Amino acid sequence: MLPGFLTFDYCARSQNGYRGGTMRGIAYGGDYNPEQWPEETHREDLRLMREAGVNLVNIGIFGWVLMEPSPGAYDFGWLDEIVDGLHATGVRVGLGTPTAAPPAWFSRLHPASLPVTREGHRIGVGGRESACPSSPEYREATANLATALAEHYAGHPALSLWHVHNEYGAPLGECYCDTSVLAFRGWLRRAYRDLPALNDAWGTAFWGQRYTDWDEIDVPRVNHTVVNPAQRLDFMRFTSGEHLDCFRLQRDILRRITPSVPVTTNFMSTNCKSMDYWAWAREVDVVSNDHYLQAERPGNHIDLAMSADLTRSLAGGPWMLMEHSTGAVNWQPRNIAKRPGEMRRNSLAHVARGSDSVLFFQWRASRFGAEKFHSAMVPQAGTDSRMWRDVVALGADLAELAEVAGGAVRAEVALVWDWQSWWALELEWRPSADLAFRERMDAYYEALWRSHVTVDFVHPAADLSGYRLVVAPSLYLLTEAAAKNLRGYVEAGGHLFVSCFSGIVDEHDTVHDGPYPGALREVLGLSVEEFHPLREGETVALSSAGSAAEAAGEGRVWSERVRPAGARALWSFAGGPDAGHPAFTRHDLGAGAAWYLATAVADPRAALEGALDAAGVDRPRGVPETLELVRRAGHLFLINHGDEPVTVPGVTGRGVLDGVEYAGGATVPAGGVTVVRES
Amino acid sequence: MLPGFLTFDYCARSQNGYRGGTMRGIAYGGDYNPEQWPEETHREDLRLMREAGVNLVNIGIFGWVLMEPSPGAYDFGWLDEIVDGLHATGVRVGLGTPTAAPPAWFSRLHPASLPVTREGHRIGVGGRESACPSSPEYREATANLATALAEHYAGHPALSLWHVHNEYGAPLGECYCDTSVLAFRGWLRRAYRDLPALNDAWGTAFWGQRYTDWDEIDVPRVNHTVVNPAQRLDFMRFTSGEHLDCFRLQRDILRRITPSVPVTTNFMSTNCKSMDYWAWAREVDVVSNDHYLQAERPGNHIDLAMSADLTRSLAGGPWMLMEHSTGAVNWQPRNIAKRPGEMRRNSLAHVARGSDSVLFFQWRASRFGAEKFHSAMVPQAGTDSRMWRDVVALGADLAELAEVAGGAVRAEVALVWDWQSWWALELEWRPSADLAFRERMDAYYEALWRSHVTVDFVHPAADLSGYRLVVAPSLYLLTEAAAKNLRGYVEAGGHLFVSCFSGIVDEHDTVHDGPYPGALREVLGLSVEEFHPLREGETVALSSAGSAAEAAGEGRVWSERVRPAGARALWSFAGGPDAGHPAFTRHDLGAGAAWYLATAVADPRAALEGALDAAGVDRPRGVPETLELVRRAGHLFLINHGDEPVTVPGVTGRGVLDGVEYAGGATVPAGGVTVVRES
Amino acid sequence: MLPGFLTFDYCARSQNGYRGGTMRGIAYGGDYNPEQWPEETHREDLRLMREAGVNLVNIGIFGWVLMEPSPGAYDFGWLDEIVDGLHATGVRVGLGTPTAAPPAWFSRLHPASLPVTREGHRIGVGGRESACPSSPEYREATANLATALAEHYAGHPALSLWHVHNEYGAPLGECYCDTSVLAFRGWLRRAYRDLPALNDAWGTAFWGQRYTDWDEIDVPRVNHTVVNPAQRLDFMRFTSGEHLDCFRLQRDILRRITPSVPVTTNFMSTNCKSMDYWAWAREVDVVSNDHYLQAERPGNHIDLAMSADLTRSLAGGPWMLMEHSTGAVNWQPRNIAKRPGEMRRNSLAHVARGSDSVLFFQWRASRFGAEKFHSAMVPQAGTDSRMWRDVVALGADLAELAEVAGGAVRAEVALVWDWQSWWALELEWRPSADLAFRERMDAYYEALWRSHVTVDFVHPAADLSGYRLVVAPSLYLLTEAAAKNLRGYVEAGGHLFVSCFSGIVDEHDTVHDGPYPGALREVLGLSVEEFHPLREGETVALSSAGSAAEAAGEGRVWSERVRPAGARALWSFAGGPDAGHPAFTRHDLGAGAAWYLATAVADPRAALEGALDAAGVDRPRGVPETLELVRRAGHLFLINHGDEPVTVPGVTGRGVLDGVEYAGGATVPAGGVTVVRES
Repeated sequence: MLPGFLTFDYCARSQNGYRGGTMRGIAYGGDYNPEQWPEETHREDLRLMREAGVNLVNIGIFGWVLMEPSPGAYDFGWLDEIVDGLHATGVRVGLGTPTAAPPAWFSRLHPASLPVTREGHRIGVGGRESACPSSPEYREATANLATALAEHYAGHPALSLWHVHNEYGAPLGECYCDTSVLAFRGWLRRAYRDLPALNDAWGTAFWGQRYTDWDEIDVPRVNHTVVNPAQRLDFMRFTSGEHLDCFRLQRDILRRITPSVPVTTNFMSTNCKSMDYWAWAREVDVVSNDHYLQAERPGNHIDLAMSADLTRSLAGGPWMLMEHSTGAVNWQPRNIAKRPGEMRRNSLAHVARGSDSVLFFQWRASRFGAEKFHSAMVPQAGTDSRMWRDVVALGADLAELAEVAGGAVRAEVALVWDWQSWWALELEWRPSADLAFRERMDAYYEALWRSHVTVDFVHPAADLSGYRLVVAPSLYLLTEAAAKNLRGYVEAGGHLFVSCFSGIVDEHDTVHDGPYPGALREVLGLSVEEFHPLREGETVALSSAGSAAEAAGEGRVWSERVRPAGARALWSFAGGPDAGHPAFTRHDLGAGAAWYLATAVADPRAALEGALDAAGVDRPRGVPETLELVRRAGHLFLINHGDEPVTVPGVTGRGVLDGVEYAGGATVPAGGVTVVRES
Repeated sequence: MLPGFLTFDYCARSQNGYRGGTMRGIAYGGDYNPEQWPEETHREDLRLMREAGVNLVNIGIFGWVLMEPSPGAYDFGWLDEIVDGLHATGVRVGLGTPTAAPPAWFSRLHPASLPVTREGHRIGVGGRESACPSSPEYREATANLATALAEHYAGHPALSLWHVHNEYGAPLGECYCDTSVLAFRGWLRRAYRDLPALNDAWGTAFWGQRYTDWDEIDVPRVNHTVVNPAQRLDFMRFTSGEHLDCFRLQRDILRRITPSVPVTTNFMSTNCKSMDYWAWAREVDVVSNDHYLQAERPGNHIDLAMSADLTRSLAGGPWMLMEHSTGAVNWQPRNIAKRPGEMRRNSLAHVARGSDSVLFFQWRASRFGAEKFHSAMVPQAGTDSRMWRDVVALGADLAELAEVAGGAVRAEVALVWDWQSWWALELEWRPSADLAFRERMDAYYEALWRSHVTVDFVHPAADLSGYRLVVAPSLYLLTEAAAKNLRGYVEAGGHLFVSCFSGIVDEHDTVHDGPYPGALREVLGLSVEEFHPLREGETVALSSAGSAAEAAGEGRVWSERVRPAGARALWSFAGGPDAGHPAFTRHDLGAGAAWYLATAVADPRAALEGALDAAGVDRPRGVPETLELVRRAGHLFLINHGDEPVTVPGVTGRGVLDGVEYAGGATVPAGGVTVVRES
Repeated sequence: MLPGFLTFDYCARSQNGYRGGTMRGIAYGGDYNPEQWPEETHREDLRLMREAGVNLVNIGIFGWVLMEPSPGAYDFGWLDEIVDGLHATGVRVGLGTPTAAPPAWFSRLHPASLPVTREGHRIGVGGRESACPSSPEYREATANLATALAEHYAGHPALSLWHVHNEYGAPLGECYCDTSVLAFRGWLRRAYRDLPALNDAWGTAFWGQRYTDWDEIDVPRVNHTVVNPAQRLDFMRFTSGEHLDCFRLQRDILRRITPSVPVTTNFMSTNCKSMDYWAWAREVDVVSNDHYLQAERPGNHIDLAMSADLTRSLAGGPWMLMEHSTGAVNWQPRNIAKRPGEMRRNSLAHVARGSDSVLFFQWRASRFGAEKFHSAMVPQAGTDSRMWRDVVALGADLAELAEVAGGAVRAEVALVWDWQSWWALELEWRPSADLAFRERMDAYYEALWRSHVTVDFVHPAADLSGYRLVVAPSLYLLTEAAAKNLRGYVEAGGHLFVSCFSGIVDEHDTVHDGPYPGALREVLGLSVEEFHPLREGETVALSSAGSAAEAAGEGRVWSERVRPAGARALWSFAGGPDAGHPAFTRHDLGAGAAWYLATAVADPRAALEGALDAAGVDRPRGVPETLELVRRAGHLFLINHGDEPVTVPGVTGRGVLDGVEYAGGATVPAGGVTVVRES
């Protein structure tokens, strides 16, 4: 018997209006590739899925050449058997549209569809993602395949989800083929309408780049110097958009034929730079995400939490964890395996942060191909293994947590995350190569995580009224409209914390008028006279502006000359090129306040504390940093990442996984997870 | 009113016979890009130029597409307004021929003109320098444009300088397109006349590379192994020559139409490896130079001095500083801003070393494009800024220094600098990858700078009779003729100091006959039996050959077995593969002497001291290393790069900038500059 | 008079049945390139060869364009003079077929023959090896040239050896041109016969890569992700095979026309990854090898010994040292020269390990071209040099050692070396990037060398019955058949020592069935539940399973969960992810035993000792590690690599080089070599 039915009607409901689905509880399972195995293994698979409590698998994700062995000739017979077997076992099916794997025959028939790198190399077959997203032949073939697949499986009772493509953006992002050149010109014509508008937006007056005809415009291919940054930015927008068009093409077909089956495609939230997921999130019925630990990175469970929080924010509510790993991955330099308990902690942290599923790549480890050393639910060692026993135990845990499914996570603090600002910041020839988007974002997220503050992520133009504090760790690009939004938020009583080199350029990488930071001068109550990037490894001391000028840590990477115009200095630079000048300021504006930190500190907690207090953000005290603490839908998740037991005071309620009644405190064992239904 | 009139008839007069020009004093200003700004900003620009004492700006440098918006249709109306406005304000005009910025329409019309990299990638539009210098269509278009531009502005009273192209060699040096292949063959036919001569020169007997037809010869494109080094060398000569031909084509047109307006193109003296500026310097009316600090390098003011001295040597007298920066540049990994006083020190150091101008890239900071984070005279922060105030003050300083313009700098010591030796040394497969041209050149220049010795740079075949000491830090390639020149110099009483791995090959990278160093054995009075390059980080102790074999520092990178044949050992290797054998020798020959240092030392001062003494080179004693001391035309420039005031004894005369009368000594404040008209 | 006649009928006799040759003694000489020199130098060369005792030189290796100056027009006149001169001087001739140097005219005539890199760059002329091995035009031209050359010199009394091509595999290994695509498809058709077999072998079910037509298959060109590993492996096999086909084509012609002249091509045994020399060794009449010291590597004489032992193992007996250097090479970053005595030690170490020749690249140093800084027998410094004196002395030594020629070296221990396992291990996406073939191979070879144990190398499927101990340091890929061979060896009484991550995949990079290590589970008596690769720099303590759990060193790179199934633990992991579990095991099976070390230790001697003892491998005790000790054909070679004299006990016999009678001991001077004919 199934542990429950997933309810898919949660995710993007508020934004997309999707209705449907009948499953409830936490989905459990993973990618399933029966095509790699003989029939006897299929029988064993079904038996083992039942043993582990698996209730959802994704199939067919790379099955194009099996579904369409020759042009236009479809064959789903092999798949019918699998789907029927799963259904008979009570396992629901996420059906992949296998368009990330164009068959070799397709590439031979349409050689112009093979992608071209920025350097001009044409990609060959033998990998995956071997078709340009702008190729009309490719698009047509995917539409036909999606149609055939949907018509074949429409009404099948096991069909619960459409899993379109796989990880748009990886490994194929930008394509520089001739088709892309034409498509880019078309995109630009639609975006700018007339050429003077494009020349203005791109600042082609610089270096004499003015275009006099649309057909002069090229993709920003390899150059011996820096290519126009606005052209690069638009090509990134175009690229994200072309892939999204490919998705929409299939989604519309699938919605038409099977209106009650939700459509998703798996994101890689924090780790995919090339897709603007704010735009994507609006288009899917369910937001789903893949996450893999960066094996050698200390504190990689914090990166996991960040990925989950960003995914939840994209979804605007619950979401699906589409892929993670039971143990080692295979594509990192050193694929460190998970320690005992780590897979359980990872899985439950995703659930705590809003996932309604725990799915893995993959059900059974491949014996061949590029990823055979990737871990799986059924490892190479088979079922007489710790990994399999942990998989079975996790299935039981998740059955107990069915009541959490569909529940919300509430955050009082938001981090501003904008893919387009990421793109712009990391183009060439910025003042310092050390100022990177993820580095700053990670530092601020980690500071809040260690303070046990749950955060959402927001686009800078989003409605911020629900948050006590909004933090912008890296917001180099900021449109006028978004700047106005931030200012309005503060004036209405919000609290805004901004880190250095933000608000510098508009959507075309043009510096805002007047002194830096043009888009934020007013809300921050200051201007910046000159940037003073630091040398590699250089630090500058900071001192608080209190009575005795106490030390306030040290800045790295960046210093600048801040000139207050309404703001007051909380800290000053005590050394370096801006010694004696403000380093950290506060500006009271309307009913709210704005903070500005003019350098990059390793740990921003000292600076954030005052803003958290002023904003009235409550957070637990006396809980060690190794303990992750999140609330979801009346449930308190306590995840102990340390090697010692941790006692959390004030916990009252029933332990969902252990059945213990907690009254006023709970001790979480080393490496353990306690979930309490709070009373 | 102008602070003076620049006199342009100084620079290359001796060598090129140019006569003309009417300006006097120090030119002050920079690159001006009005096309990036609306008219109201133009009016502000003129007001501010007057405020700062600007008297020369360079315009139109990237204006091709504006001057010729479609093939053959010229439009200078927009520029007329600018030029007239400048003239009315008393600002002279350096007019750029904008051939470094072929329009996008040109590339579309002539796609074969787009350059190709060594790896075979065709460069796209969207950057700059997007045309192969050998392209006949490109050359024709530049000739037509230069003609139209010169005819339009001939006789305009503001026109004071032709600024042809921009920084030939950067970013485009070598081009590997099909046109280049044909042009290279043509160049080779003219250079060698018959194929056996080429086969001999290139040593094609090695690896069986003999050519039997001119059409078999290719450009030295990417290979899986090392390409024939003589072919590489000739391709480098060809490349420098093709760009120079492009310059000459325009220059001849400009000279014909406006014979009284001097023609220049901006060099990047020490920092451009690909152009042989000894050849270029003969072709310009005025030598001009761009220099940017390597922001993170300690002692980068010494690199500045070296660039200035090399430029003066190329000019054979005064020259123009065409570009430097008021603060940070934008294209380095960390664009460190200049400290207070640093821009002034930099500017006056250039003047002290022979520049008759202080020009900046750029007048006003761009708001868009690839270089918007580059500093400017009018920064993003506007005129309420330290930078602008410093710009205004510098203008006043330069007005005071008008009397220095046109004045000479005298040096008793010369450093041998040969681009072709640089090229050859840094081809693949030399005995040690650690022996680099600039590393050795910098070490010797810095040693002499710290000893307050002003130096010229010379080509090895130049007339050396005016120098007491000639130093060759890195002279791997040396022709028979140049070797004879060096020998004649010594025999006639000169003093020659040579560093290791010099005089090894001829102009075709062929090892000279007999033991190393074939071209220098006789003058140095020794031969080298075997090279013994050291391991990474390995050092060898050196001992002086005095009574007690005192320590004489340590060698790095290189050791070798020196066999004296007339020379006597001053120092020996005290360790390493040549322990007990000579490391530093002196050979008395004719009326002079030749020194040889058989290893690379970090600081060659200890070795140079004896040669400086023997040669009778006078230099100030007791002046700290942080103080830069140079004389130009009866003026003593004292530039204090340190954080403490420095007192220089024996200074007598009037302070030009401070009006102080110095009698027997001057104290230069920390970071300050004192210029004394010596009496 | 010659010091003897080389006997070429030794080498591959056992395997290839070659009979012929009349030379005896040790061949001495090198590559000779008279085409680079005028006639007077030729006369000096002959005089000097006689002085040095040179008796064999290789000529014509890059002489194609001289032999065939235009298509089909052969000219050997210039060579006749050389060959006749050598013959008159008593120097035998190895005649090169110069097919590694296609003339520029050939490339112009057949541009499609130019190789293409994996990234798609077409290689130009100006280097060497500029033809794709699959090019039919190239093959035809080489066949015609070999025919003409052989017919011309057939019967010439000086002709003693055919030296076909030069270093197949360097610099040209893989080629990605269109011809290669077609050739690869043909190779695959022959290898797999039908497409389903290929799809199965390549695991194309993964990532949907199934091929439906042979013409869909491409070479594994550059991709944005990992290309199918089995495709990569087959392309490596194809590449080695295409070059080998080129060799065979010439060899068959040469054998037909001059049946009594042995044919070879020079290998680069340990240093060429791309050629599967086990296959090549079967095809040559004489195995020959090039070896160059890795100049900066400490203990590079151990690498030399390894290269010699591998070459001897390929030959199955004596072999020829075709190239090494008298001093510095020219293609390393720092080309460290040899110390006094080092060339002699190197040369005699090769002889001690089975070489019947001491040949150098090159006779006389080139004055031009890419390798002019490479050392030679006649250096740039000429004959008044230590190098020349050492060359003459070495000639005399080798004359004394004539009696060793043709003699065998016996080893009781074998190291398993399989190129195909090397290829597979180092493809992308393995569990740890730190686990490299050569690193492990070097560590084990060095451990045995320092224990004075002489080893052979073997293919895993070879007859192992002659060895007491077989060690497999890195055997990731292992076929079923080879696994069976190893098991049979142990059952029959052999001793097998296996290092971690061995026996994982079959010949198509498919994981063997069941838990790791599928191909070795039974013989090792264990399985591995999960791999636990370590972090960069991480170590894990090891403890011996004795009474008090003594320390047994530390593991690096790798840890894994070993589950014994018959094996017993000798050591355990004392830390890390597998603390408390077996790290080093022994399994007694049949009459033999198998050891398994589940981590990578820096020095495996502690682990090897027990296996050496159990296998009854005798080795000298009390001899310092700096002394190399090898026996060949009744001669004991004692090579002292240290800076102190070393006394070796128990040495009795006559010193061949020094004439001393040793009775019970010999003292070898620092840096010296003693060869004793043992009595």
